[in-house]
Amino acid sequence: MNIDFHIKPEIRILGIDDSALLNEKVMIVGAVFRGGDWIDGVLRSEITKDGLDATEVICNMIKKSKHYDQIRTVILDGITYGGFNVVDIQMLYRETGIPVIVVMRSYPDFEKIKSALKYFPDGEERWTIIKRAGKIERIPGEKSPIYIQRAGIGVETVKKIIRLTSIRSNIPEPLRVAHLIATGIILGESRGKA
Amino acid sequence: MNIDFHIKPEIRILGIDDSALLNEKVMIVGAVFRGGDWIDGVLRSEITKDGLDATEVICNMIKKSKHYDQIRTVILDGITYGGFNVVDIQMLYRETGIPVIVVMRSYPDFEKIKSALKYFPDGEERWTIIKRAGKIERIPGEKSPIYIQRAGIGVETVKKIIRLTSIRSNIPEPLRVAHLIATGIILGESRGKA
Repeated sequence: MNIDFHIKPEIRILGIDDSALLNEKVMIVGAVFRGGDWIDGVLRSEITKDGLDATEVICNMIKKSKHYDQIRTVILDGITYGGFNVVDIQMLYRETGIPVIVVMRSYPDFEKIKSALKYFPDGEERWTIIKRAGKIERIPGEKSPIYIQRAGIGVETVKKIIRLTSIRSNIPEPLRVAHLIATGIILGESRGKA
Repeated sequence: MNIDFHIKPEIRILGIDDSALLNEKVMIVGAVFRGGDWIDGVLRSEITKDGLDATEVICNMIKKSKHYDQIRTVILDGITYGGFNVVDIQMLYRETGIPVIVVMRSYPDFEKIKSALKYFPDGEERWTIIKRAGKIERIPGEKSPIYIQRAGIGVETVKKIIRLTSIRSNIPEPLRVAHLIATGIILGESRGKA
C-alpha cells in the first residue's frame, strides 16, 4: 500500500506540531499548506501529556476539518507528541485514508526511548506502536539529511514532497510553520527548532 | 513625518489580528512576514474586550519581540480590536518608531460607530482616538479597492507594500495569515474573512 503518486505543485499538505509541555493538556497545531508555498488554514486541538490519545485526536481533527477532502499528505514531527503520547501512523493512515510522513532531524535513540517507557505501566503498548511505524529511511538533503517513516506512500513520492516543501529550511514548510504557530501562541513569541 | 521609503522584497512586516470575542480576554496574534512571501515568526498577546489597553499591549508585544529591530511596518485590520478597544496608531508609531498602516475592506460607518460609543462612559476618549487615526484613503486594487489610514509612512510606500504583499487575496499576507492563526487557534479551525 506504500504507493507512489503524482505530486501537483499545489498539493495540500497538513503539518502537525505540538506546543511546550506547560500543562496536562498540550495544544497541537495543524498548518494546511498548498505545496511549500502558502498557508491555507490552521487547525488546533488538544492531547493529554504522556497520554495515549494523540492518534484519535489527530484523526478527529483531520476528519472534521473542511480541508479533509483536499489534504493529500500529513507530515508529523516524529511520532511522539505531548511527551510520550505515541501516534500510530498506520492507524492514522487507515482511519483518514491520507498518507502519513514522519520527519526526524536525527536518527531516534531507541535505547533511550525504551528506557523511558519502563516508567509507563503501558510501556509495552507504546513500544508496539513505535515499532509499527516501520523502518527509518535516510533522505539526503542539500545541507543535512533527514530521517523519515511513512504509511501509505512510496519513498520516491516522499522525496518529491520533501523537495517541494523544504524551501525555507531543511524541514518542510507545513511543519516549520506549525511549529512557529504552536510555540508563538503558547509562549507569546515563536521559537525556531533547536 | 509621513515619509516614503525604499521597500526591499524581503521587508519585515507585522500583521496583527484579533480572535473571536468568546471571553473577557481576547487573543491578538501577530504574524511576522518577509514581504508577502513567508512567515518568520508568530506573536501572541491578550487585550480586554471593549477595554482601552490595545495600544499599550500591541506596543509591548512589538517592543519585547526578537523581531523588533527588523520590523519596518505594522499592518492593522481596522483600528478597533476586541470589540471597541481602539488602537491609537499615532501613539503606536511614536512609541515603537515603526510606521503603521490600517487596512479596511470598506469605508467605515462612522455614524454607527458614534452611536455605539454612546454606551461607553469614555466614549468621547475613544472617539478622539478614532479621529486621531487621520484621513481615510482609497487604494484601488485589482479586484476591489481597500481603504487605509497611516502613521509615519507616505501613501506611495503604502501602495507599494500592499502591492508586494497582497499576492494570495486582496488583503496583505501578514494580515490574512494572522487572521487564519487567530481564528484557527480559538475556534479549532481557521475561517476566512467574510
